[in-house]
Amino acid sequence: MNQQYQDCLEACKKCLEACNHCFDACLSEEDVKMMADCIRSDRECADVCALAITAMQSNSPHVREICGLCAEICESCADECAKHDHDHCQQCAEACRKCAEECRKMAV
Amino acid sequence: MNQQYQDCLEACKKCLEACNHCFDACLSEEDVKMMADCIRSDRECADVCALAITAMQSNSPHVREICGLCAEICESCADECAKHDHDHCQQCAEACRKCAEECRKMAV
Amino acid sequence: MNQQYQDCLEACKKCLEACNHCFDACLSEEDVKMMADCIRSDRECADVCALAITAMQSNSPHVREICGLCAEICESCADECAKHDHDHCQQCAEACRKCAEECRKMAV
Amino acid sequence: MNQQYQDCLEACKKCLEACNHCFDACLSEEDVKMMADCIRSDRECADVCALAITAMQSNSPHVREICGLCAEICESCADECAKHDHDHCQQCAEACRKCAEECRKMAV
Repeated sequence: MNQQYQDCLEACKKCLEACNHCFDACLSEEDVKMMADCIRSDRECADVCALAITAMQSNSPHVREICGLCAEICESCADECAKHDHDHCQQCAEACRKCAEECRKMAV
Repeated sequence: MNQQYQDCLEACKKCLEACNHCFDACLSEEDVKMMADCIRSDRECADVCALAITAMQSNSPHVREICGLCAEICESCADECAKHDHDHCQQCAEACRKCAEECRKMAV
Repeated sequence: MNQQYQDCLEACKKCLEACNHCFDACLSEEDVKMMADCIRSDRECADVCALAITAMQSNSPHVREICGLCAEICESCADECAKHDHDHCQQCAEACRKCAEECRKMAV
Repeated sequence: MNQQYQDCLEACKKCLEACNHCFDACLSEEDVKMMADCIRSDRECADVCALAITAMQSNSPHVREICGLCAEICESCADECAKHDHDHCQQCAEACRKCAEECRKMAV
């Protein structure tokens, strides 16, 4: 795999894991209703991270544009997760922020 | 695209749509907590239907095995959705049943 | 499902099918080497169409931005497919153009 | 994330990367035609690994059945890749074998 993608790939993998874990944990919370927007964001963010990972690993033609979208969606998922005090939300917010930052560098 | 896949493809497309719609609608219900298992099943079923659609359309080597798994997951998602009276759940249960039936024929 | 998405959804479904079919058919051509870029584009375009379909059907938070990326990738896949005389490439080019057009309307 | 999934997750992540890299590298080989079946297997195997990763990370209802299918597809992709002397094919074959083994443990 292309070496230049390594940091971004690593961040996307961690973000995918954090989003999927947060999705699962939100659905097991006492007050699921309060987590509805977080559940939506987690799924969307996981899906775009998975797309970005495959694009980077397979040297896909529009890898920069895909990372650009991933940055935007990660930023927004971070904002949503940051509103909630649960550990899984706080950890997801942090993984999303880091991923947005790395994806933005790739997108240039 | 291979003609033999047409009925199964059509059922998978309808099931993907029903599951994604049910996912969205469950997250907007008054009592989201009661819908937590349905939300999980909807996402999983949508993901495997998307995989089956791509496998059939691209003539993928293990299309039969993928359809076999899709049948199993659709059947289970139908059982979960059927427990709830919401229209979106009842419609999703029906689309899942039909999809399970068509996928089972493909899997043979 | 939200009614406003119908035309775009329909175009994305047709484009997903055309790209997956073209991917399969390119790999069965006599001169596969000449089709290498087309095979890459087909996979990328199919993946982003699948993401857009799920985003529209599940009323995903960034559906407009996802459709915007889909428009860009479809346009580029159409350009690549249009270079080749095979029926599957010409049909894929047409499905990609139509999808790019509908996705661009959604992205506004 | 559930601790019991760690070894299998790690193997699936490596297999996803190896398959996507092999897909890219096969398309850049001098004799692409000879790699056509490998390209098909790589894409299918990457897609099912991505599904398995998300299923494990989000504690998906049918995670065992998904890992069972993943084991089968990885085994077959390993067989195909092993036929070719290219480094990327040999490395992919090894990653697929390891992933098949871990997925089989999960599937029980």
